[in-house]
Amino acid sequence: MTVKPLGDRVVIKNCEAEETTKSGLILTSAAKEKPQMAIVIAVGPGGNVDGKEITMNVKAGEKVIYSKYAGTEVKVDGEELIIVRQSDILAVVE
Amino acid sequence: MTVKPLGDRVVIKNCEAEETTKSGLILTSAAKEKPQMAIVIAVGPGGNVDGKEITMNVKAGEKVIYSKYAGTEVKVDGEELIIVRQSDILAVVE
Amino acid sequence: MTVKPLGDRVVIKNCEAEETTKSGLILTSAAKEKPQMAIVIAVGPGGNVDGKEITMNVKAGEKVIYSKYAGTEVKVDGEELIIVRQSDILAVVE
Amino acid sequence: MTVKPLGDRVVIKNCEAEETTKSGLILTSAAKEKPQMAIVIAVGPGGNVDGKEITMNVKAGEKVIYSKYAGTEVKVDGEELIIVRQSDILAVVE
Amino acid sequence: MTVKPLGDRVVIKNCEAEETTKSGLILTSAAKEKPQMAIVIAVGPGGNVDGKEITMNVKAGEKVIYSKYAGTEVKVDGEELIIVRQSDILAVVE
Amino acid sequence: MTVKPLGDRVVIKNCEAEETTKSGLILTSAAKEKPQMAIVIAVGPGGNVDGKEITMNVKAGEKVIYSKYAGTEVKVDGEELIIVRQSDILAVVE
Amino acid sequence: MTVKPLGDRVVIKNCEAEETTKSGLILTSAAKEKPQMAIVIAVGPGGNVDGKEITMNVKAGEKVIYSKYAGTEVKVDGEELIIVRQSDILAVVE
Repeated sequence: MTVKPLGDRVVIKNCEAEETTKSGLILTSAAKEKPQMAIVIAVGPGGNVDGKEITMNVKAGEKVIYSKYAGTEVKVDGEELIIVRQSDILAVVE
Repeated sequence: MTVKPLGDRVVIKNCEAEETTKSGLILTSAAKEKPQMAIVIAVGPGGNVDGKEITMNVKAGEKVIYSKYAGTEVKVDGEELIIVRQSDILAVVE
Repeated sequence: MTVKPLGDRVVIKNCEAEETTKSGLILTSAAKEKPQMAIVIAVGPGGNVDGKEITMNVKAGEKVIYSKYAGTEVKVDGEELIIVRQSDILAVVE
Repeated sequence: MTVKPLGDRVVIKNCEAEETTKSGLILTSAAKEKPQMAIVIAVGPGGNVDGKEITMNVKAGEKVIYSKYAGTEVKVDGEELIIVRQSDILAVVE
Repeated sequence: MTVKPLGDRVVIKNCEAEETTKSGLILTSAAKEKPQMAIVIAVGPGGNVDGKEITMNVKAGEKVIYSKYAGTEVKVDGEELIIVRQSDILAVVE
Repeated sequence: MTVKPLGDRVVIKNCEAEETTKSGLILTSAAKEKPQMAIVIAVGPGGNVDGKEITMNVKAGEKVIYSKYAGTEVKVDGEELIIVRQSDILAVVE
Repeated sequence: MTVKPLGDRVVIKNCEAEETTKSGLILTSAAKEKPQMAIVIAVGPGGNVDGKEITMNVKAGEKVIYSKYAGTEVKVDGEELIIVRQSDILAVVE
């Protein structure tokens, strides 16, 4: 079962706690939004979104920092996925 | 009796609980919006919507995940339908 | 006495309860807006509305589902009419 | 003393209660806005309003239905006038 | 000392109570905004204002009706002036 | 140490109380915003600001009236400076 | 581990208290936003951001004053970083 995001939506999956510790990245909670690290699973096609032309700049497989509260959680085939707008992704981590 | 959505509206119909279980998709409720899986029944023509040019990217028959609170429920000929804007549809499930 | 809507406004008239029952359409109330079925009485010319170019897509005589709270009720010559923006009309019913 | 409205503003004057009764138009109060019938006294030139190009579609002398709460009341030479934006005028009554 | 307004700002000065009475104009207070009569002292150049192209339509010396709460009061050389945006000026009075 | 404002930001410095009294300008507090007189210290380059093309119309050395609550105060080398958007500057005083 | 900001995002790092004192810059807290001095670590590519064309005007290594509450704090490899939009950076300090 595949989840194909529409427009400027991106499907991401939280990195597990173990992996986060290994990589040395610890996320502190800011005043208004809890950022989190995730892996990009699928990227919408962008293009005409609500009358605006949107270019997609993230790729499946990339590790990203995103704003947690903006997303919608879904559980597909046992995997917990999150669907966010690309504008809720703050940075790519390499 | 047919419901033909206007502009960027899409008519969808919730998947029944049985079917959802079979497919293995379980939806958890996020902080602000309860996503749900539905089947697309009819798609508006898009085009000029409130002065913006909108392209429609979903098709009748597709399974989609949408944000529940955005829609309007109507009951037509015994069927419970939901009318949402295309921007309230997050992803297509295949 | 004729009510000619301006801009993207549409004059509609609620279908009577009897007629609604006959057609088999029953409207349930959603979380935020009570949809209703109505007949289009008159349609504004569209065009330049608040600096945006609006195309009108409904025609007098069509049955429509609309969002109740957006409209303004007026009683003209004994008939209860409702003036809504076209964007408050969700779908045409055939 | 003449009031010349600017931009997309329109000067209107409420129809008197007697006249309203004669014409058979009775206005009921909707949930959010009290519509009223008025006669157009003067119409702004339209054109560049806040960076948007506005076309004026009402003429002095026309009877209109408008949304009461949007307007500003002024009393000039004993006459109570109301200054509204054209977008607060819902329909012309003929 | 001269106050030269920027962008779409206009410097106005309230008409004195005596003058207002002579002209027969009495201003009643509306639900949301208290309109007032004033004389235009200086007009900004318009042009590029916040990325929008604004045309100025009032001239120094004109009597105008404006929405009181939008302005900023300053006292220069003993004169009480008000700085408003042109969009807060509703009409010119002749 | 020099503060170079970005985009449509302007660095200003409040005129001292003594100077204000000498010039005869006394500022009264309006309903929503406390205006103040200041001297322009540095002006951002304007240009592309948040996707809008902004032209800068104030120059270093000019005396301006601004809306106090919009700015951000910083103390650099003992001087109290304020960083405001150009749109928060209401007028130039000559 | 490198954090590469997306769109108009900028990764910054607060200057240490010691350094701030040496340079003579003391930041006072304004009514609505606490400004802070930081060093730019990485700058997003700008370009198409939410359908608007954004030009980036800060460079890695520059000292900047920013609005604190707008950012998202992350801790990467022991370093506390902040991700802000470029529009939250008020000025460059030289």
